Amino acid sequence: MAKEEKRFVAHITPRDQDFSQWYTDVILKADMVDYSDVKGCMVIKPYGYGIWENIQREMDRRFRETGHKNAYFPLFIPESLLAKEAEHVEGFAPEVAWVTHGGNEKLQERLVVRPTSETIICSMYAKWIQSHRDLPVLINQWCNVVRWEKSTRPFLRTSEFLWQEGHTAHADYEEAQEETIKMLGVYEEFARNVLAIPVVTGKKSEKEKFAGAKATYTMEAMMQDGKALQMGTSHNLGEHFARVFDIQYLDKDGKLKYVNQTSWGTSTRMIGGLVMVHGDERGLLLPPKVAPIQAVVLPIAMHKEGVLEKAKEICNTLGKAGVRVEVDDRETQTAGWKFNEWELKGVPVRLEVGPRDIEKGQVLACRRDTLEKLPLPMDSLPDSVTGLLDDIHGTILKKATAMRDARTYTALDFDGFVAGIAEKKGFVKAMWCGERACEDAIKDKTGATTRCIPFEQEKLGDVCVHCGKPAGAMAYFARAY
Amino acid sequence: MAKEEKRFVAHITPRDQDFSQWYTDVILKADMVDYSDVKGCMVIKPYGYGIWENIQREMDRRFRETGHKNAYFPLFIPESLLAKEAEHVEGFAPEVAWVTHGGNEKLQERLVVRPTSETIICSMYAKWIQSHRDLPVLINQWCNVVRWEKSTRPFLRTSEFLWQEGHTAHADYEEAQEETIKMLGVYEEFARNVLAIPVVTGKKSEKEKFAGAKATYTMEAMMQDGKALQMGTSHNLGEHFARVFDIQYLDKDGKLKYVNQTSWGTSTRMIGGLVMVHGDERGLLLPPKVAPIQAVVLPIAMHKEGVLEKAKEICNTLGKAGVRVEVDDRETQTAGWKFNEWELKGVPVRLEVGPRDIEKGQVLACRRDTLEKLPLPMDSLPDSVTGLLDDIHGTILKKATAMRDARTYTALDFDGFVAGIAEKKGFVKAMWCGERACEDAIKDKTGATTRCIPFEQEKLGDVCVHCGKPAGAMAYFARAY
Repeated sequence: MAKEEKRFVAHITPRDQDFSQWYTDVILKADMVDYSDVKGCMVIKPYGYGIWENIQREMDRRFRETGHKNAYFPLFIPESLLAKEAEHVEGFAPEVAWVTHGGNEKLQERLVVRPTSETIICSMYAKWIQSHRDLPVLINQWCNVVRWEKSTRPFLRTSEFLWQEGHTAHADYEEAQEETIKMLGVYEEFARNVLAIPVVTGKKSEKEKFAGAKATYTMEAMMQDGKALQMGTSHNLGEHFARVFDIQYLDKDGKLKYVNQTSWGTSTRMIGGLVMVHGDERGLLLPPKVAPIQAVVLPIAMHKEGVLEKAKEICNTLGKAGVRVEVDDRETQTAGWKFNEWELKGVPVRLEVGPRDIEKGQVLACRRDTLEKLPLPMDSLPDSVTGLLDDIHGTILKKATAMRDARTYTALDFDGFVAGIAEKKGFVKAMWCGERACEDAIKDKTGATTRCIPFEQEKLGDVCVHCGKPAGAMAYFARAY
Repeated sequence: MAKEEKRFVAHITPRDQDFSQWYTDVILKADMVDYSDVKGCMVIKPYGYGIWENIQREMDRRFRETGHKNAYFPLFIPESLLAKEAEHVEGFAPEVAWVTHGGNEKLQERLVVRPTSETIICSMYAKWIQSHRDLPVLINQWCNVVRWEKSTRPFLRTSEFLWQEGHTAHADYEEAQEETIKMLGVYEEFARNVLAIPVVTGKKSEKEKFAGAKATYTMEAMMQDGKALQMGTSHNLGEHFARVFDIQYLDKDGKLKYVNQTSWGTSTRMIGGLVMVHGDERGLLLPPKVAPIQAVVLPIAMHKEGVLEKAKEICNTLGKAGVRVEVDDRETQTAGWKFNEWELKGVPVRLEVGPRDIEKGQVLACRRDTLEKLPLPMDSLPDSVTGLLDDIHGTILKKATAMRDARTYTALDFDGFVAGIAEKKGFVKAMWCGERACEDAIKDKTGATTRCIPFEQEKLGDVCVHCGKPAGAMAYFARAY
């Protein structure tokens, strides 16, 4: 029974009926992820993990090009180490997993499964950094982290997730600030050029900043249901951790100084983001740059002489040209069934080859984004398919940008604010006094949080949209994942 | 002070004086690894992690070429899941880390930090596999695992380590056996062609096999101190786990059948192996295929006009040709100091460029393996450097093979056996009855364990070297890491 169900491309709940169910339907039916026996932990299946591998490769190249190297630090953090920085432990202690026993013995000191690695890394930097010649230290780590979450959803919020965390140390605050902003820029460019997701970038409020940071910067994306998703953050830690962990260096002037640090991270959460930005009624729509399969070749009337051979030849040619491509030569499924399945799985380009196509020396390409069909001459296939993939990237980025813009509202008063958040649903841009009390009250009344104080400011007035006090800056508000 | 120490290439303990201290000196001074505040856990520094990244890339390609895909399963395993397979839990329970609390709450069921993932993966395969059309399942995972070790050494035995674990499911035993042997073959070819390490392959004894396996196969390497290192294992799990986790499929004949499974793994331990096989008095000697830096360009008399520019140009040219290359343009160190440091770090090729070299249109290359110096014409540098790297690979593989062969002794009686293990030190090939009691007695008397019953058998006699009972097969014995 279970088998037969799986063999059919099943019904997907419409987005406008129940977006949350649509999301679950899509990620499960596209075979990206599964639930495990461990509360809040997901299994990332090969099709989902393939997306992560492409994300990793693209990001890792950008980290290297900006001078960073990868390293690996322990999974476990002694309780005393986590507790050193006061704000940090307060922020993370309530949501960590505790290791208390090793084998049959009780540990002398409890260990935390890393929720993030600032403390363990700082304890090493204190050993490694002695002189100005040791700076800057530019290290990144790809790893798993654990945060004990009460309410979880695959990719978006899970007790264990995969991420990268950059940790750098610099001679002074300005250099740390430059790095913080540079890496947020790398994230923003990556989101746009690889995930085809336009983001809003800016600074987090004091309430929303990272536990232990001097300032946190963020990139925020808009989902199709009008909720925001924080896609990555970059923190200037200032001397907070350096003072606690005693990370000092001897400067050229002969004086001992504390380093200034940054940390920045993105995670498998981005996969949830790209599903919710690009997906549609037919299922997933994968940005070509991270799609595990960019093009699928479907032999039509496969039993006819030469069809399967031609399909394989095309696959081979495209593979050599750097396209991630597969032939679907399953005999157990009809062509129609296959069309549906590859659409559900969001493969950007489908290439159909039948006897008549071969006669005409062409392939029938179908774009996943527009569903347009267009014949492509066989002899220039690598160029036209790569061109098509680029075009799809551009088209879905444009569509996502239009969606984000349409879901961005300007509120000049609190009625407008409430309407934007609760009825129209999306980002609300509004002037804000910057006070925590006001931020809390807004959240209580509307469910919206400050997403960021954007770098691109607009002057919408002089007073806070909520309390009427003087307001120096505009903020983005939204309900968020 | 600590700083100044680090700035000099420090003394390395001679190998023949104290091999263990030599190993520690090399890995710490070459900046591969550091000790952490967490007992038994190491920090893999960028230079050590770069080796791991190259190992991953090379292995991952081989896994893909043999049809495997990567996925990710949870870090935590519920106690009840680990306990399902009796031999497995008995083997691993004494050495696992236990998570008992999440945030401030005690968990209803304790969780194990994965020591290996058979159980969690089997619980998923039971859901995923229903029909013969779902087989084979060919999945690999790159991740961290934890085994609570009493006595640890960086790379060789640490409480947390990084590894890959392949987990496959097949229609029958023969196919599982074929996969088990195929992947051991992939490991052997990788060890030889990438790490330049010749290994002995064969089957583990019942005592030494994986907890829960039907049969374990291994690759064993010989270190320069005469101790063996298990570098990778491949297990045929038969139906052991399938019966416990109820992984059944409907076969073409309409019958429900249990799958047969395999698992296979290699880890960061291999890095310890390549240090102990190739290193020498000067420090590390890295196999070119995994060296993070394959060639370093040293400008000589850097202040002279055009020298630094030429060095950078060479670096650029080689980089484009796919060589991992860096220029050492530090002004704070002498050329002699740099020579020592790059030798300590095991960079296969050093390229010196000074004013006279530029005049002659050449570069002076120095091989790390033989320390030979040879002038290379500037205009054919990419070809000659890649050729040199290949030659170094061949030369160190030949040397390692000669070392292994010289340290492989044949014992026809137990006196010869003891002499081989305790005095000459190395592998001892001997006939063995196959009995556990005999294996235990040999270990008590000599410290040697059965490393494997090699695929390549020699008939050295008819009776066991220890007990004199009839012996059907020859085994490799050695003291091991």
